[in-house]
Amino acid sequence: MRDAYHEELEAVSATLVEMANMAGVAMAKATIALQEANLSLAEEVIAADDAIDDLQHQLDAKVVDIMARQQPVAGDLRALVTSLRVSADLERMGDFAHHVARVARMRYPEKALPPELTVVVGELGSAAQRIVSKTAYILQTKDAETALELERDDDEVDRLHRQLFRILLDPSWSHGIENAIDTTLIGRYYERFADHAVSVGRRVHYLVTGAYSSKSE
Amino acid sequence: MRDAYHEELEAVSATLVEMANMAGVAMAKATIALQEANLSLAEEVIAADDAIDDLQHQLDAKVVDIMARQQPVAGDLRALVTSLRVSADLERMGDFAHHVARVARMRYPEKALPPELTVVVGELGSAAQRIVSKTAYILQTKDAETALELERDDDEVDRLHRQLFRILLDPSWSHGIENAIDTTLIGRYYERFADHAVSVGRRVHYLVTGAYSSKSE
Repeated sequence: MRDAYHEELEAVSATLVEMANMAGVAMAKATIALQEANLSLAEEVIAADDAIDDLQHQLDAKVVDIMARQQPVAGDLRALVTSLRVSADLERMGDFAHHVARVARMRYPEKALPPELTVVVGELGSAAQRIVSKTAYILQTKDAETALELERDDDEVDRLHRQLFRILLDPSWSHGIENAIDTTLIGRYYERFADHAVSVGRRVHYLVTGAYSSKSE
Repeated sequence: MRDAYHEELEAVSATLVEMANMAGVAMAKATIALQEANLSLAEEVIAADDAIDDLQHQLDAKVVDIMARQQPVAGDLRALVTSLRVSADLERMGDFAHHVARVARMRYPEKALPPELTVVVGELGSAAQRIVSKTAYILQTKDAETALELERDDDEVDRLHRQLFRILLDPSWSHGIENAIDTTLIGRYYERFADHAVSVGRRVHYLVTGAYSSKSE
């Protein structure tokens, strides 16, 4: 049965999927901006972050409005509270894409990354895309099994993150402190982007199954 | 009038104050652990993070339970939703203290910080204490004016954070890449700790006045 109330709940869900897609596009562009020192892409990502933030504010206001008007039963209430948390995670994922783009813009017309980091950051970018696509899928389908896969995908990000530090700490590193600072922060931005995706997966998993998938950070 | 419902709402508020105090104590100990290479303090902070996380989980469950049972009016509902967001900020502040303590533990028995960073990190620690004390006060009093002060206190943290980078980037820096990575991350942990305090201030300010104090990150 489709009544106005359930249409509202579905609209909340659809907005979360849209936010996940926006965060994914932003991180894809930010990765290219970083790799190519592409200023216009970096500017696009930085400008688009406001749109994700606005969508979060609208969604959160909508959710509180539904809670106030509809007096939802416990199950729907838990789903709505989860939506608020998921929207905060997705907004934060958009922030990390924005942070990556800002590093690219700050170093323009130079490339922020020395050549020996191109491959590993490219792989971090690919891993981030895999994870955020899966996040959008999970939000759409509420598939608790796929939500569990995000933990393994995140292990891959952690592996790449450690590889980044190994390159930085290799005695052959010749790019100085400023590049090391940029790289440290960039690595953290990808890692945190993935962490928030895992957090979304855990929240959906818990909502659907009532069981925590594993200890959160 | 004190009925059971209002006692529940006040207990939520009191738990938030307690979480802010715990995050403050954790960051104070983490700063000392970092400055003195004090392993037992670092271990205390790392162990105590679970207590903050548990308190957050209990509080959030309690808030959702109140929402489900009491069908709060719009004003109380907004306050309860704000509590969920504030508890997430405070939990995250505890995480950053934990991260600082982990750097101290990782480098033990060495000090993680070279001597020329001792003063600026000490000042970051003091600024963090000022901010988290004010955060607890704001949560206790719902004082919207004091909430606005946090923005200025955060400017001081940002200034110290920039000073940290100036020291790192000075040609006289002789402590290599590993120390630069640690310092970059430590600087970010203090900065993010303060950002979340500002976020709490903004949320309380908005709840009390209905006006945004300024654009969030």
